[in-house]
Amino acid sequence: MRLRAPTANSNRSTLQGPPMRSPTIKDVAERSQVSLKTVSRVINNEATVREGTRNKVLRVIAEMGYQPDLSARSLRSARSYALGLVYDNPNPYYVIAVQSGVLSVCRESGYGLQIHPCDSNSANLAGELVHLARHSRLAGLVLAPPMSERLELIRHLRANNIPVVRIISAAADPQDGFPCVYVDDRDAAYDITKHLIQLGHQRIGFLWGGEAHRSSPERYRGYESALKDYGIALDKKLIIHGDYSFDDGFRGARKLLALKERPTAIFGSNDEIAAGVLAAAKSSGLEVPYDLSIAGFEDSPFSKQSWPTLTTAKQATEEIARHATQLLISEIDREENDVEKLTVVSNKGFSPQLVIRGSTGPARAAS
Amino acid sequence: MRLRAPTANSNRSTLQGPPMRSPTIKDVAERSQVSLKTVSRVINNEATVREGTRNKVLRVIAEMGYQPDLSARSLRSARSYALGLVYDNPNPYYVIAVQSGVLSVCRESGYGLQIHPCDSNSANLAGELVHLARHSRLAGLVLAPPMSERLELIRHLRANNIPVVRIISAAADPQDGFPCVYVDDRDAAYDITKHLIQLGHQRIGFLWGGEAHRSSPERYRGYESALKDYGIALDKKLIIHGDYSFDDGFRGARKLLALKERPTAIFGSNDEIAAGVLAAAKSSGLEVPYDLSIAGFEDSPFSKQSWPTLTTAKQATEEIARHATQLLISEIDREENDVEKLTVVSNKGFSPQLVIRGSTGPARAAS
Repeated sequence: MRLRAPTANSNRSTLQGPPMRSPTIKDVAERSQVSLKTVSRVINNEATVREGTRNKVLRVIAEMGYQPDLSARSLRSARSYALGLVYDNPNPYYVIAVQSGVLSVCRESGYGLQIHPCDSNSANLAGELVHLARHSRLAGLVLAPPMSERLELIRHLRANNIPVVRIISAAADPQDGFPCVYVDDRDAAYDITKHLIQLGHQRIGFLWGGEAHRSSPERYRGYESALKDYGIALDKKLIIHGDYSFDDGFRGARKLLALKERPTAIFGSNDEIAAGVLAAAKSSGLEVPYDLSIAGFEDSPFSKQSWPTLTTAKQATEEIARHATQLLISEIDREENDVEKLTVVSNKGFSPQLVIRGSTGPARAAS
Repeated sequence: MRLRAPTANSNRSTLQGPPMRSPTIKDVAERSQVSLKTVSRVINNEATVREGTRNKVLRVIAEMGYQPDLSARSLRSARSYALGLVYDNPNPYYVIAVQSGVLSVCRESGYGLQIHPCDSNSANLAGELVHLARHSRLAGLVLAPPMSERLELIRHLRANNIPVVRIISAAADPQDGFPCVYVDDRDAAYDITKHLIQLGHQRIGFLWGGEAHRSSPERYRGYESALKDYGIALDKKLIIHGDYSFDDGFRGARKLLALKERPTAIFGSNDEIAAGVLAAAKSSGLEVPYDLSIAGFEDSPFSKQSWPTLTTAKQATEEIARHATQLLISEIDREENDVEKLTVVSNKGFSPQLVIRGSTGPARAAS
C-alpha cells in the first residue's frame, strides 16, 4: 500500500484544536499511539508493520493531513537496510544455524541479510570487508569466528565507521569497548571431559578444531584442566591438531586408533570432527560406545541423527546469533542517533551445556 | 583506491591530437583497451577489476583528464548491486552448495548476495518476494525449487519487472520464455533403480521428497519406469510419502522395515532421506548393504562421510547454481540494455549421474 498524497480537505487538524502548526510525525505517532519509528516504517512502506497498525497510522495521517518531509524521507531511504554476515567455517550445520538466527532478527527489524563467507587467511581481509560494507551499503556487520576474534580487524572496521558485533569464544566479557556475544567454550569442554573421566576413561584423545578460532584453544584448555583436576597425566600422543571438519576428524581418529595404546574415548572439538571419528571407528570395526566412546561439541542436527547419537555440548548457535544481531541493530540505532530505538541491548554470555547421548559409555580396556 | 580529481595540467589530451572535445568514458575505454564496463567499474571503485587493469585505467584517466559525469555516476550507483537467493529446503548441504555457487558468480560480477529462505506455503509469497526485491533493491532473484516451479509466481514477478532465473526439475527445456536451469531428475532416478534391480533387488522401497518440489514426482517417475521396464510390479505398500528430510527418511524406513515382506533395498529421494534410512537400518540391527541396500540422491558431503558411504546420483548443485546466476546476470544486463555485457548465457540442462558406493550390494532374501 502506497501513501496517498493528502488532499486539501483531508487536513482536519485545525478542526480539532491544537496543534495549529502543520502536524509533525510526532503528532501522528501520539495520536496513533505508536512509536515514531512505526510511523516512519509505515511512511517508508516497510513490511515489518502489522496490517492493523499500518491501517491505523494511515488513517491518522489522512485525518491530520500530515505531509511527510520528502527530503528527510529520501535521506531516510538512502539509509541501508541490509546487514552483512561474515564467516569462515567448513561446518554447514553451524553456518545454517547462524544464518537462521541472524535472519530472524533481520526480518523483525526490516533488514535484508547479505552473506559473506570469506577466507580468514586472506591477506587483505580488512580491506575486503570495508569494501563489502561500502559497496553493498551494509548498515553493519555480524562477525563470526575467527574474524570476530581479531582486535586489529575490529579496530579497522570501527575506524571506517562500520558498526560491527562479534560472536567470540571467551569465558567472560572482554570489556574492550566493542559489542560482542561470548561463548564459554572452556567450561563446556571441561564438563565433557569430566563426563568421560567419570565413565572411567583415562586415555582420552583430543582432536583440535581450526587454531584460527579462539574456541579451539579454549576447548583444549577445558580438556586439559579436567584431566589435571582428576589427576590424569597429559599424553601428547593423544592430542591431534586439525580443522573443524569431518575429514580431519576421520584422519585424526585413524591416527589415534593406530596407537599401540589407543584411547578408549575421543573428544572431537565439534560435531563434524566427532562424525569423522565415528566413521573412523566403524571403518576400524569398533563398536561405539562399547569399544570407543566419542563426544563432540555443538549439538548439531547430525549429533541427533547419527547412530549412535552423539554426546556433545549444546551450543545455542541460533540464539547466540539472534542476540548478536539485536546488539548490532541497537548499535546502529545508537550511532544513527535514532532516539526512538525500542531496545537497549548489552553484551551477553552463553554457556554450552553437556548433553549425554548414546556415543559415550563406561570404559573397557582397549584391545 | 579513490579516483583523484584531475588537476588542470593533467589534461594532456589536447597535446595528443583529437579528440579536442572533453574526453568521454568511451575515449578512456579505447585508449585503455578495456570495455566501457571496466572503466565504469574502476570509476565506481568496484572490487572486480584486476589491480593491473585498474592502474592502467587510472593512468589513462589522469593522462586524458577525463572527468566522470557525476550525475551519471550517481544514477549508476543508484543501481542495485545485490541479487537475492530464494529457497525453502530443509537440507543444509543443498542450501550451502546453492549459496556457494551463486556467491561465486556474484563475486566475479561485483554483486552482493541476500539470502531469503522462505515458507513456500506462505499465502502471500508473491507479495513477499516483490516487497523483498523492492525494499532491498535487489537487481534480480535466483529462485530454487519449489518457488521456481510455480509459473504464476514467475509471471507475477516478471509483471513487476523483477528479473528472475529458475532452477527447476525437468527432463527438457520448458521453453516458456522464462530463463531457467533444468535438472533431469527422472533419468537419474531411473538409473538408480536400474542399478538396484541389476543387483537382484525386486522389492525396492521408495521414499518421496516434498511434493511441492517437482523433483519429487520426477524422481518417482524414474523409479516407476525402471520397475516397469524390468517387469517388476509396483507395490504401493513400498511407497511412502514425506519431506526431503532426515526425520521423514527415518520414519519412512521404520514403516517399510516393519512390513511383513520388507524391502531388500530402499531408494530415498535425497541423501538426507537416505541418511534417515541408514539410521533406521542401524537402529533395527540391520547391516548395510548385507541386509538392506540404500540409495540416495544428490551426492552431498554426507553421502561420502556416512558408513557405509552412500550410492547416490551426483547432482552438480554448485555448478547448477553458478549457471543460473550467470543466466540471471545476463538477463539483468539485457534488461538494462547494457550493451557492454560480456556474455550471452542460455538455458541449460543438467543430468545427475549415478555414483555407486558402499551402501548398495547384491540382494539376499529378507529375513
